[in-house]
Amino acid sequence: MIAWILATGDEVVNGAVEDTNSAHIARALLEEGVRVERHMAVADDLDALVDAFTETGGRADVCVVTGGLGPTQDDLSAEAAARAAGTGLSLDPEALAWIEALFKAMDWKMNESNRKQAYLPETALRLDNPMGTAPGFSLDINRCRFFFLPGVPREMVRMLAQEVIPRIRLMDNRPLEVFRSRTLRTFGGGEAWVGQMVSGLEGEFPGLKLGLRALFPEVQVKLYLRTGDADEAKRVLSRAAGLVADRLGDRVFSLEDEDLEAVVGRLLRERGQTLALAESCTGGLVSHRITGVSGASDYFLLSAVTYANHAKTRLLGVSESTLAQHGAVSGETAREMARGAREAVGADWGLSTTGIAGPTGGTEEKPVGTVWVGLSGPDGDRSFRFRFPFPERERNKEIFATSALDVLRRALAGLEDPRYG
Amino acid sequence: MIAWILATGDEVVNGAVEDTNSAHIARALLEEGVRVERHMAVADDLDALVDAFTETGGRADVCVVTGGLGPTQDDLSAEAAARAAGTGLSLDPEALAWIEALFKAMDWKMNESNRKQAYLPETALRLDNPMGTAPGFSLDINRCRFFFLPGVPREMVRMLAQEVIPRIRLMDNRPLEVFRSRTLRTFGGGEAWVGQMVSGLEGEFPGLKLGLRALFPEVQVKLYLRTGDADEAKRVLSRAAGLVADRLGDRVFSLEDEDLEAVVGRLLRERGQTLALAESCTGGLVSHRITGVSGASDYFLLSAVTYANHAKTRLLGVSESTLAQHGAVSGETAREMARGAREAVGADWGLSTTGIAGPTGGTEEKPVGTVWVGLSGPDGDRSFRFRFPFPERERNKEIFATSALDVLRRALAGLEDPRYG
Repeated sequence: MIAWILATGDEVVNGAVEDTNSAHIARALLEEGVRVERHMAVADDLDALVDAFTETGGRADVCVVTGGLGPTQDDLSAEAAARAAGTGLSLDPEALAWIEALFKAMDWKMNESNRKQAYLPETALRLDNPMGTAPGFSLDINRCRFFFLPGVPREMVRMLAQEVIPRIRLMDNRPLEVFRSRTLRTFGGGEAWVGQMVSGLEGEFPGLKLGLRALFPEVQVKLYLRTGDADEAKRVLSRAAGLVADRLGDRVFSLEDEDLEAVVGRLLRERGQTLALAESCTGGLVSHRITGVSGASDYFLLSAVTYANHAKTRLLGVSESTLAQHGAVSGETAREMARGAREAVGADWGLSTTGIAGPTGGTEEKPVGTVWVGLSGPDGDRSFRFRFPFPERERNKEIFATSALDVLRRALAGLEDPRYG
Repeated sequence: MIAWILATGDEVVNGAVEDTNSAHIARALLEEGVRVERHMAVADDLDALVDAFTETGGRADVCVVTGGLGPTQDDLSAEAAARAAGTGLSLDPEALAWIEALFKAMDWKMNESNRKQAYLPETALRLDNPMGTAPGFSLDINRCRFFFLPGVPREMVRMLAQEVIPRIRLMDNRPLEVFRSRTLRTFGGGEAWVGQMVSGLEGEFPGLKLGLRALFPEVQVKLYLRTGDADEAKRVLSRAAGLVADRLGDRVFSLEDEDLEAVVGRLLRERGQTLALAESCTGGLVSHRITGVSGASDYFLLSAVTYANHAKTRLLGVSESTLAQHGAVSGETAREMARGAREAVGADWGLSTTGIAGPTGGTEEKPVGTVWVGLSGPDGDRSFRFRFPFPERERNKEIFATSALDVLRRALAGLEDPRYG
């Protein structure tokens, strides 16, 4: 079974947007054992689209198309698909009802162009989009089954998993091999170190392939396996993941592709404990990540993002003499911030960050990339200093936040203190 | 002059790597007035490559190909290009001399596979690569002039600018025009509304093209202009941007492609005023966005992310009777939070969010997607209620945060109250 992947849209073809959808779709198809042969991106031009659909229809078995389902005149996927399939467009009453209900729920005014999204090719099967107004659809053009999805990545990702992959599994010419992968997440060792530690592992499992992916500031270890049986794949990947974890030690924070904040949340929940944050240089990012996990209100009470020094003294009780003597970026201030946040709301744990994210504000003694993490817990107050070599604010906020979460993970899990940065 | 852009490589087609080269090339070609019609990505397979080059040769005037020039067996671009052009490969002595000199300078041992990189199609013109061992080349296949560049982004970027663009400018069928773009950023109207409001505008400026891009929760309006003169392009785009802004009114928050948090920061700085936040449902995201702007410490003092009710009372002085009577998600609580944050640090403005981001926690009266934004400023305290239809926590956090920033932008700029959601 050969697949082509097709992205539509002037913004992709003109380079205004980088197409991340096609890589996601390719990985998902590969997991199913489908061979991806080609990607294409085509502008919002009716002739060019009809042309691309016709060409694909004669050469591929399956094609996933993204984009062009919106309400504007640029959105031409349905019309082009109908032409390439030699049919017309017709109103899908259920699609219209869904769009109308969505607009009603939002109390927005619906206009004629929104109705356009309910017109699908006559031979198409509608694919529901629970996250947006544009329904997707599936139809055959020549020998190829097409799946049309919205270009909005989160809508596409969900519909691909729920509406497309299950249908591909039912096709007559479906692949008989499966391709499975598993992801371990690590923090605190560089890509080269991780690569060295896991080298030689592929040879121990037939068909296993290892890939490293540096997704700043993490390094992910991906295990891929192609085999005839999904249960067998699961067992082999599980054993291989265990071996990788043995080699990398406590720098692995998840064997199950969990985010670090989800791991920390799970550990807090298991212990029935609560958390208060005091952030300076991370500017609310630790809090944003913690609260991105559903159910965080069970253990997360507060983050005091105290950018100004007088916010640190007034809200967290950091002493003015500590600030004057050691400065805002110091282990002493970090400890007082963590304790202050913890005591302000009676949390079990207080965690703080204070540092220099840059691009300006660094000194010789405290260069950009310096951060102190404070931890206040059942066993007292501590602080940790890390130094990272990055000049950019955004990267420093990310790695500072990850470092703070990792300090808390290690304390909760009773692991050794971190040594990185 | 029509261009196609072609990326080669299994890693791109399998989705292990996202292709950023093609977007870069598209932008560079577009600036020269070249119309980009299609991108393709093709696996490292000789037949598939010959096929793609042949197809392109019959349909495009110019094609930039990346990847496949390395020393390994996977690197098939030269061989496939020669086949598609109906010629053979021959050793380019100057390319070989360059590769040998490079290996000698690096004190590396050269092997037979490195010599392979010096074999180019017989009809090709070599393009020097000052940053790597693989030379590029140019040749004609059918009606199309091809430029083959390495896949390594920094090598590709340099060779595109130095070797490809100057040659395209000299081609007989070169475009006599330039292409320029400009981006306006809006919030508060859906894509369909924006599309309706700006419809017909293209006709008022010859050569102008409008594109809408929904980048949740914003809608961006992109203006593209193709014209003979760069200065003229700037003037026309400026006038067109003004007209778009007139039609869309105060839902446009930037005519210069600024982030909303940067606009709010600029307004605060111009007024010499300061800001304190009190966040509940946005969980630190407003703060994270505000502190993502370099220099934010000049105007940003505090965000109290008070997830727990007792954090709201203790740190912000929200009264227990307000919480008991109206609930945490209410206009009253939002106002008290905003005032509490403002007074805690003596800021000019206090801005708060309290709502239900989901996926759980909604009620009939206050469904998931409900948010109250509180504003406390020189003219007193107010609150605004918005309702959005999204079930996902992440989207709600984003649109709640954007709504809060937009409430503040409107207050700072003296605009009307928002009506969205």
